[in-house]
Amino acid sequence: MSDTAPDLTRFSINQMTVKQLPLPELTAVCRELGVGNVGLWREPVQAYGVEAAAKLVRDAGLTVTTLCRGGFLTAVDADERARALADNRRAVDEAATLGTDTLVLVSGGLPPGDRDLRAARERIADALAELGPYAERHGVRLAIEPLHPMYASDRCVVSTLTQALDLAERFPAHQVGVTVDTYHIWWDDRAPEQIARAGAGGRIHTFQLADWTTPLPEGVLNGRGQIGDGAIDMREWQGYVEAAGYTGAIEVELFNEGLWARDGREVLAETAQRFAAHVDLAGTGE
Amino acid sequence: MSDTAPDLTRFSINQMTVKQLPLPELTAVCRELGVGNVGLWREPVQAYGVEAAAKLVRDAGLTVTTLCRGGFLTAVDADERARALADNRRAVDEAATLGTDTLVLVSGGLPPGDRDLRAARERIADALAELGPYAERHGVRLAIEPLHPMYASDRCVVSTLTQALDLAERFPAHQVGVTVDTYHIWWDDRAPEQIARAGAGGRIHTFQLADWTTPLPEGVLNGRGQIGDGAIDMREWQGYVEAAGYTGAIEVELFNEGLWARDGREVLAETAQRFAAHVDLAGTGE
Repeated sequence: MSDTAPDLTRFSINQMTVKQLPLPELTAVCRELGVGNVGLWREPVQAYGVEAAAKLVRDAGLTVTTLCRGGFLTAVDADERARALADNRRAVDEAATLGTDTLVLVSGGLPPGDRDLRAARERIADALAELGPYAERHGVRLAIEPLHPMYASDRCVVSTLTQALDLAERFPAHQVGVTVDTYHIWWDDRAPEQIARAGAGGRIHTFQLADWTTPLPEGVLNGRGQIGDGAIDMREWQGYVEAAGYTGAIEVELFNEGLWARDGREVLAETAQRFAAHVDLAGTGE
Repeated sequence: MSDTAPDLTRFSINQMTVKQLPLPELTAVCRELGVGNVGLWREPVQAYGVEAAAKLVRDAGLTVTTLCRGGFLTAVDADERARALADNRRAVDEAATLGTDTLVLVSGGLPPGDRDLRAARERIADALAELGPYAERHGVRLAIEPLHPMYASDRCVVSTLTQALDLAERFPAHQVGVTVDTYHIWWDDRAPEQIARAGAGGRIHTFQLADWTTPLPEGVLNGRGQIGDGAIDMREWQGYVEAAGYTGAIEVELFNEGLWARDGREVLAETAQRFAAHVDLAGTGE
């Protein structure tokens, strides 16, 4: 970073983007680079210890913008469903311990052999009816993340912001809202109007960036592009969420084998630079 | 096939499903198995000779349900655009020579470095305004195929039936309609109402089947599942198109490395059996 470092006030680095960095190194590099916000993931936080992780980020002066992720709420089997609900309550507890108000939900795919997307989406609603009040009591908001339709069968039957809002709006906004992630919705010409709908209802609980690059890798999980490398106009989407009233942090969440193979500090510095180059740091002012 | 072979009147085998079969073998196997309909592809037809291919399928008593594919109409460069239009006029000529009334269009992706999906979709409309009347004069209908959103950047900026119909409806239905392919739209909860819209306007120009299986292969082109292997309820989608008035052939179009590595005759027989097992052969009667 140069002496004329950009204002990274709005920038949040999602832990998965630099998963090669152990949590203490992540916090150290954030301090070094002037990054004040992080989005955390449950597995590395659990491995480090939730209380210890909370102390670590607190001592480093970092704000935890989100915890990723709860969800996987589409099971039909009663035992499996009960386990999922219990795990999501733990996720809420962890979010509260870490001091973030937002738990991102990846809703879950179709059970094996199942072909009924509609019924799976209804099971998510049933689960939210139990989890929403629990989250509220812990000061945590659930943020349903629509995932790209290419994940509809095996990871998330909620594929569009429209579907996510149709679910979220059955509950109070301080219980259930949505995650707006450019990677998952950039292709959708209805997404801008749905962002406005989400904003009007106070339901944009987090805004995340990743770029769309091709060819997609096998399994299509770990091919999210570095900001600026792909087909998505980040300022355009920033404009939509800010016009809808969103003023919170902007998280960069990349799953990318190429980035993970590199030095984590270097990747974090590059990501901050790309953020500064492709986002209006002062806000779009719309 | 047993003596109690199912009624394959509605079944059409898309040439790409068994691309390992040279055209004369494809027609011979179709006769042997009682398959009366084929969807053809331009490249193998051109390699064989368009007139010769037309004679071959005619002599075999086969009906050509579609020709795949025209399209790729999103170029900005004037020369590239002129070449694409000329190539699409040739595709119309080939369709007419082969005796099919339907040319499937894969609209094209974003030009390199371009991030404007909306503008790309408008360029498709501009091209259709030239191609539609040309196709009509040759007795051919253009069938815009929405491709799964995972192809939005590099193959087809038309990702939903809604978008395809928004384009098609600028033109007469006998010039421009849509392709309904389960693989591309199965995740979309708005697709059923859009099929009704398409049917009401006489714009369902072809109905194609492929199943959704995961994990997706690298590049996500050649992982379309054999009917019955995946997450899509074929009878449900058949019900939608038939409720919308579609009574035409049902094409099975699979791009699948595993199927291509096998004996082509065996794959065609299996595909016909799967079709019979997963489609209501008498129609859904809705």
